[in-house]
Amino acid sequence: MICSSSLRLSGSGTGTRNSPSPPASSENSDESLSQVRRIKASPQLNRWSRARSIRSGRKLDRSAVSATVRTESRDKSGSPVRSELEIELPMSPKGDSRSGSSDDEKEINGGKPIFMVSDGTGWTAEHAVNAALGQFDYCLVDRVCPVNTHLFSGIDDVEKLMEIVKQAAKEGAMVVYTLAEPSMAQFAKQACQHWGVASSDILGPITEAIAGHLGVSPSGLSRWAPERQKSPLSEEYFRRIEAIEFTIKQDDGALPRNLHMADIVLTGVSRSGKTPLSIYLAQKGYKVANVPIVMNIDLPNTLFEVNPEKVFALTINPVVLQSIRRARAKTLGMDGELKTNYCDMDYVKEELEYAGKIFAQNPVWPVIEVTSKAIEETAVIVLRLYHDRKNRCSMPRISKRY
Amino acid sequence: MICSSSLRLSGSGTGTRNSPSPPASSENSDESLSQVRRIKASPQLNRWSRARSIRSGRKLDRSAVSATVRTESRDKSGSPVRSELEIELPMSPKGDSRSGSSDDEKEINGGKPIFMVSDGTGWTAEHAVNAALGQFDYCLVDRVCPVNTHLFSGIDDVEKLMEIVKQAAKEGAMVVYTLAEPSMAQFAKQACQHWGVASSDILGPITEAIAGHLGVSPSGLSRWAPERQKSPLSEEYFRRIEAIEFTIKQDDGALPRNLHMADIVLTGVSRSGKTPLSIYLAQKGYKVANVPIVMNIDLPNTLFEVNPEKVFALTINPVVLQSIRRARAKTLGMDGELKTNYCDMDYVKEELEYAGKIFAQNPVWPVIEVTSKAIEETAVIVLRLYHDRKNRCSMPRISKRY
Repeated sequence: MICSSSLRLSGSGTGTRNSPSPPASSENSDESLSQVRRIKASPQLNRWSRARSIRSGRKLDRSAVSATVRTESRDKSGSPVRSELEIELPMSPKGDSRSGSSDDEKEINGGKPIFMVSDGTGWTAEHAVNAALGQFDYCLVDRVCPVNTHLFSGIDDVEKLMEIVKQAAKEGAMVVYTLAEPSMAQFAKQACQHWGVASSDILGPITEAIAGHLGVSPSGLSRWAPERQKSPLSEEYFRRIEAIEFTIKQDDGALPRNLHMADIVLTGVSRSGKTPLSIYLAQKGYKVANVPIVMNIDLPNTLFEVNPEKVFALTINPVVLQSIRRARAKTLGMDGELKTNYCDMDYVKEELEYAGKIFAQNPVWPVIEVTSKAIEETAVIVLRLYHDRKNRCSMPRISKRY
Repeated sequence: MICSSSLRLSGSGTGTRNSPSPPASSENSDESLSQVRRIKASPQLNRWSRARSIRSGRKLDRSAVSATVRTESRDKSGSPVRSELEIELPMSPKGDSRSGSSDDEKEINGGKPIFMVSDGTGWTAEHAVNAALGQFDYCLVDRVCPVNTHLFSGIDDVEKLMEIVKQAAKEGAMVVYTLAEPSMAQFAKQACQHWGVASSDILGPITEAIAGHLGVSPSGLSRWAPERQKSPLSEEYFRRIEAIEFTIKQDDGALPRNLHMADIVLTGVSRSGKTPLSIYLAQKGYKVANVPIVMNIDLPNTLFEVNPEKVFALTINPVVLQSIRRARAKTLGMDGELKTNYCDMDYVKEELEYAGKIFAQNPVWPVIEVTSKAIEETAVIVLRLYHDRKNRCSMPRISKRY
């Protein structure tokens, strides 16, 4: 059975997840290659395998070929640490897939599956796949060539990884991975090759490039590795949480007296996207306040008293705004019932003109056109201007210290 | 002057940003290689260059060598489209950097610079770099080997790109890029090689792998390309905004009568991280409500009436909780002034025990330990359980349709 197949892991240092801390020097690393330990089978994995075995009504494939994964990583002092991974890869998972795949694993709607495998959260893989899929918009629209992504996070041992690659082969999926530990990444590559699964390593190449640039070695530790556990009680942690809580409290002009405490103040008419933009920026650590512009309602004096360089005005095409407002009214159950001019085209145009006049009276406020922009697109425009105004670089850039 | 150096772009199809829409068939692509157009110098770039020239008190380097970038991309029908880019690369920007770099471009605090260059927002590059830097935590902590990242977004022409690579050479930065257009990516690679700048392509390899998997070609269009403009008024857009607005309104148990409308309900004592987690999940499109547990205050009945499979309980180490509460009290200016037992260790422990008893009475609620977990780590645990409960897969996965 796959989950209890002979898995032998030999070696030392950061290349192996179950090994103790890497030695301070590599002088003994060659000798330690003789150390052979058995990875304990994870109860979770056993459960999966048992469950599948039971559902498919047959025993899991026991035939196997053996493969050896050799990796060379470096410990913190930069000395090379060799790991060797001997593993039995069962033959042709495709062979038993047709008879054995369970209903829940089938791609019912016919979408091409992409498996994202990570020893951490997997959000990096998801983000990269999402960006890359943007290159196939023309084909994804209306699900002409549908894609389904499946994120497997916290995959920190070779057994689980093998199970997933095997499953990918069965489902005809490709595998995209972010695996910090070199032996795991190496194994993913080798197992995918073995089973004819297309694969792409997201984290490896960029980590290697940064290592070369910094002249130091990557730790090879996954996010959950105890050695890597960082206290969340960092300055950054508190700053981000404070920004989120501040932003929630100020939403929709709730506390205009606090505008001076905000890093960024957004203003614009209802449904110009102030709230989602505020929250997106808050997640990045900026305290944001937003002030709605409503015709015939006075704006708070504080909006004109704060540093105008931190105020950003949002504008939007009236036709698009009308359709967003209509959708909003529908959601709120307002359509037809409430006698409101909220969605009326004349009113929409008049309100946008009213806002435009206020913006013209405050020429320091940049006016950002948000029509057909995603939240993260508007966010990058705001932040570029914000950082440019703060730093006055010759080239607009958003800088961050690590 | 670099910004007006001879830039010639020849070719057709998706490989070139300034060319018209790709031809429906590639039959004419060879002939169209003779088309030669001049890219107009961007006024923004001229402004940068002039500014630098003025500040450095000297003329910019005019010496140059010429380089040719040839790329082969595919149009939507899968037919190859060749582009050719002839460009003059000035010699050794490092040579003039030492004398000419302005104050605002110097790495004052000595951090190694990483330039992230994107024709879109750049958040993908930022996310990947951030994840990769996690591999250097041990060295980044206390800024032992400090790093500064600089994000250049919306870089959609070769001139700006060249300016940035040149600047990277001057500042000793490496360049990480996400450039959808093949000729731009090719140019970045070639220019970095030319000037001895380390570089890494984030988007190219994963896009190529997905193209192979799907059997269709990437569009080669950057996010801002008019052909790629997607209306933000998609179902997904409204769902995300609705989730964010719902979540903001329910924060801190504000509207317990709405719990049945939430996708996910979080509960836990004050400062166990419910709010930032709610907002993070809302950004991903989930409607989240959170209900605080406070000793001697009755919980809303609705918490016990909703489907218990959507309720997630958060718990935290008392010592850590105390320190978070102390920091909170300090921020609010409560420390010393208010006679509160909020931060008192006995009270903290008692409240956690009280919460623990409620959790024990509701065994379906998973209890998630959040101590020393980042928000996105807890989020992935919640979502894995949430999707697992919904889909009952043999392997826990978070699935998404495209």
